[in-house]
Amino acid sequence: MTTRPILLDGAWREARASRTFQAHAPSTGAALEPAFPTSRWEDVDEALSAATCAFEGMRAAGPDAVTAFLEGYADRIEANAAPITEAAHRETALPLEPRLRSGELPRTCGQLRQAAAAARSADWTRPIIDTVAGIRTQYGAVGPVAVFGPNNFPLAFGSASGGDFAAAIAAGNPVIAKAHPLHPETTRLLAEQAVLAAADAGLPAATVQLLYDMAPEDGLRFARDPRLAAIGFTGSRRGGLALKAAADEAGTPIHLELGSINPVVMLAGALAERGEDLAAELTGSCLMGTGQFCTNPGLVIVPAGEAGEAFAASVARRFDEAPAGVLFSEGGREGLAHSISRLVDAGAEVLTGGAAVADTPCSYANTVLRATAREFIDGGDAMQDEAFGNATLIITSSSTEETVELARSLAGNLTGAIYSATDGADDEDHDRVAAALRTRVGRLLNDQMPTGVAVSPAMNHGGPFPATANAGQTAVGIPGSLLRFAMLQCYDQVRPHRLPEGLGDENPRGTWRCIDGAWTQGPVPAKDA
Amino acid sequence: MTTRPILLDGAWREARASRTFQAHAPSTGAALEPAFPTSRWEDVDEALSAATCAFEGMRAAGPDAVTAFLEGYADRIEANAAPITEAAHRETALPLEPRLRSGELPRTCGQLRQAAAAARSADWTRPIIDTVAGIRTQYGAVGPVAVFGPNNFPLAFGSASGGDFAAAIAAGNPVIAKAHPLHPETTRLLAEQAVLAAADAGLPAATVQLLYDMAPEDGLRFARDPRLAAIGFTGSRRGGLALKAAADEAGTPIHLELGSINPVVMLAGALAERGEDLAAELTGSCLMGTGQFCTNPGLVIVPAGEAGEAFAASVARRFDEAPAGVLFSEGGREGLAHSISRLVDAGAEVLTGGAAVADTPCSYANTVLRATAREFIDGGDAMQDEAFGNATLIITSSSTEETVELARSLAGNLTGAIYSATDGADDEDHDRVAAALRTRVGRLLNDQMPTGVAVSPAMNHGGPFPATANAGQTAVGIPGSLLRFAMLQCYDQVRPHRLPEGLGDENPRGTWRCIDGAWTQGPVPAKDA
Repeated sequence: MTTRPILLDGAWREARASRTFQAHAPSTGAALEPAFPTSRWEDVDEALSAATCAFEGMRAAGPDAVTAFLEGYADRIEANAAPITEAAHRETALPLEPRLRSGELPRTCGQLRQAAAAARSADWTRPIIDTVAGIRTQYGAVGPVAVFGPNNFPLAFGSASGGDFAAAIAAGNPVIAKAHPLHPETTRLLAEQAVLAAADAGLPAATVQLLYDMAPEDGLRFARDPRLAAIGFTGSRRGGLALKAAADEAGTPIHLELGSINPVVMLAGALAERGEDLAAELTGSCLMGTGQFCTNPGLVIVPAGEAGEAFAASVARRFDEAPAGVLFSEGGREGLAHSISRLVDAGAEVLTGGAAVADTPCSYANTVLRATAREFIDGGDAMQDEAFGNATLIITSSSTEETVELARSLAGNLTGAIYSATDGADDEDHDRVAAALRTRVGRLLNDQMPTGVAVSPAMNHGGPFPATANAGQTAVGIPGSLLRFAMLQCYDQVRPHRLPEGLGDENPRGTWRCIDGAWTQGPVPAKDA
Repeated sequence: MTTRPILLDGAWREARASRTFQAHAPSTGAALEPAFPTSRWEDVDEALSAATCAFEGMRAAGPDAVTAFLEGYADRIEANAAPITEAAHRETALPLEPRLRSGELPRTCGQLRQAAAAARSADWTRPIIDTVAGIRTQYGAVGPVAVFGPNNFPLAFGSASGGDFAAAIAAGNPVIAKAHPLHPETTRLLAEQAVLAAADAGLPAATVQLLYDMAPEDGLRFARDPRLAAIGFTGSRRGGLALKAAADEAGTPIHLELGSINPVVMLAGALAERGEDLAAELTGSCLMGTGQFCTNPGLVIVPAGEAGEAFAASVARRFDEAPAGVLFSEGGREGLAHSISRLVDAGAEVLTGGAAVADTPCSYANTVLRATAREFIDGGDAMQDEAFGNATLIITSSSTEETVELARSLAGNLTGAIYSATDGADDEDHDRVAAALRTRVGRLLNDQMPTGVAVSPAMNHGGPFPATANAGQTAVGIPGSLLRFAMLQCYDQVRPHRLPEGLGDENPRGTWRCIDGAWTQGPVPAKDA
């Protein structure tokens, strides 16, 4: 069996491999050909050196070349949509329609084009000009960025095509992509287009490089390497925290997007008004994509008593009736089973599901658990374990006080949603719960499930640790997401002809800049004579 | 001898002390009365609990109360300028005039008033509104903040009065101040005014709390405590990195401002044009405040050859002729001596100085060291040690290539300055050196020493690790410095009447907001009918 080459410094080259691995078709468990290499340190080392040179080249090429690359790459992905989405379907079992072809691929190309627009306008650099003090500052590129993509969005969060990739490149940094081992062929097909697009745009050969795998100790060495300027990682808490410890030691900024249980609070008035509709809405959100979303609602809080019981029973019935989807891997199913048994050990009761689906490699029964708010609060960390997949935990709360106490006990999450009566009956409860949730979640929602993450400049796909590593930054939303891969670059009394384009008196790109306290797209006003 | 009480939850109370300590007059080495307590964990624990409650109260009190506090506190510091600056002079030996009375105190009050203005306008929250997607996001407060102030600015960077304090409070967070043990009485006098100003403004009692000292292990426990939302630390690399390791473990954001050697490059044309003037300027900058500035020029690169030799000789002569200042402490003198001997061990030669001043407790001879660029580059970390105080290292570089190589070899620094000929003769060299320095320093200067740090919105007092923990943020400059103590708070489909003031359609404070891609101080435009 052949082994795929890696992408180093613009060329597809045989890896210095310590072993090889194969992806698997989740529906059947069959290994997919060909094999992919686990790189030895020499490959990582070479990628880092090539990226260091590429960084200089990207600075010389400038933002117009970066824009051209991002737009050209999006065009190429569209032109190669069929093979890319078919590979993703084979490797992940995600449906071609509507998910991959009509959802994730257009989203991916849209992100790349938004990132291109951000590079073109330079709005992301947020220039601040103090004409009196003679000081001018903007965000600028930092250097080689490592992107570790997750298992659940092979394109839109993919290491060589997704949000972190687009943000790092748009900010002017070369990317060393580390493919997720569950969809290496999809990543390869994307990187194939990326390297062609980089050449078309006149960017350095090592603007985009791709490694498929490396030994865990080499991953940590990678994170600690002084040539690496920043890291983007989306994935498991265990892997992310190990990488974070290594990066922290070296002082390298690391942007994590780890697990989140995304609390959803159903207030009494909402349940009374539309409990069955909400049970249907929750079920749809929980089971979409077999629950494998970072914003999947894994924790639902309802009032104790009749309405809450009826809601829990309805959700359990709906979970039971819905077909169990296919998880990404056997390992994913094991992880889900482990998390569920941890919740049960901590005191949760299984309302439905709770077991693997027989005669399938990667399916687990749709699972609803339940516990009281007191059990949840007293259960500590064990009750806040993310069960990644088609499972959710329903909590019955005896009072608003208890719901507030529960909200305060939560570790950091990406989102928190509150459903309330349309007639205002829940308004007071809403405000109390929202105040408690506010510092525990990055995004608060009303009457909407958290699973949709619009690519809007106002989006915050972030939240307090351990959902992410920095509650001040977002992984989705352009231009904000670019700031994760940037540094403040200040010019103090620097002679005018030496200022970078974005900080000169002229403003050829019409960038939004804050000049002496006022935001404007215009030039620095001429001084009064 | 009496022991000073600590400030817990609005009251001055006896500490649960494990020991006591005294400050010392640096000029004589005499211990100053009274004594101050080293708190046991119980004090820290109680401060954290009180701050948690105060955070809720600050959110309820709102930004106008925060504004009133910051302005009232500035007024009170001015009204008590004499005792505060006299205590600072006793504890630090910094001159009353011009430094403390005419420099640092007005700067401190100016910062507090700028922070008040930022809280009033809410410009620092940077609201982003997407009216089409129904998503609105702004920065908001995070919770209790610990501030560890440095030894060198008892007021302007003081734990209960300085830049980190002002930023954390203005963003809506209570502060637990940890005084620097070299100036506890100064900090006490400031905190005394702060707690009165908080009461005047109707802020919670625990908005400002003060501890003087704690055992190192309690400091690490403090940094790891889940009740703490963020940390600001300015001080030594060793202390800062220990605190960072603890904070990183807990996922608590920590903002460090550690050492920096602040490279200054003198290009050939500048030396030829005005070498003697530059030697005088450098000497003044290096010896001001006995060199105890985070932006003190600790590394000066000159061309090898006659002009460079003459410059080094002139600087050495000027250092030799200037009186040696008084360092903050005997420990500080030991630290300086240690760093200088480390540089000598690494290959640097002493041109002048290099020994303690006899018969003084805290003075060290003004010291100039020199080495070649090759010795510096090959010396690695040992050559990049910060000698905190009245010492500088002059490097002779044989070529622009070598200067560029040296710049690339630098660890992260706060600043980098380049002096060049006024007639443009150095322009090409400037651009090559500046490009290499750009990602190694937060602030690039032309023809100016880095020691002045203007409190401008465009200032960046930050830089790559290990100068700080995050090259994307600044410790000086309002409103930007507030973002270090804030989180992104997104509202997705949240009903209009539930949006926080800053994100509603109206814009009563005239905050600069980015609405559908355009910055404006106006309201959200009404939709077309």
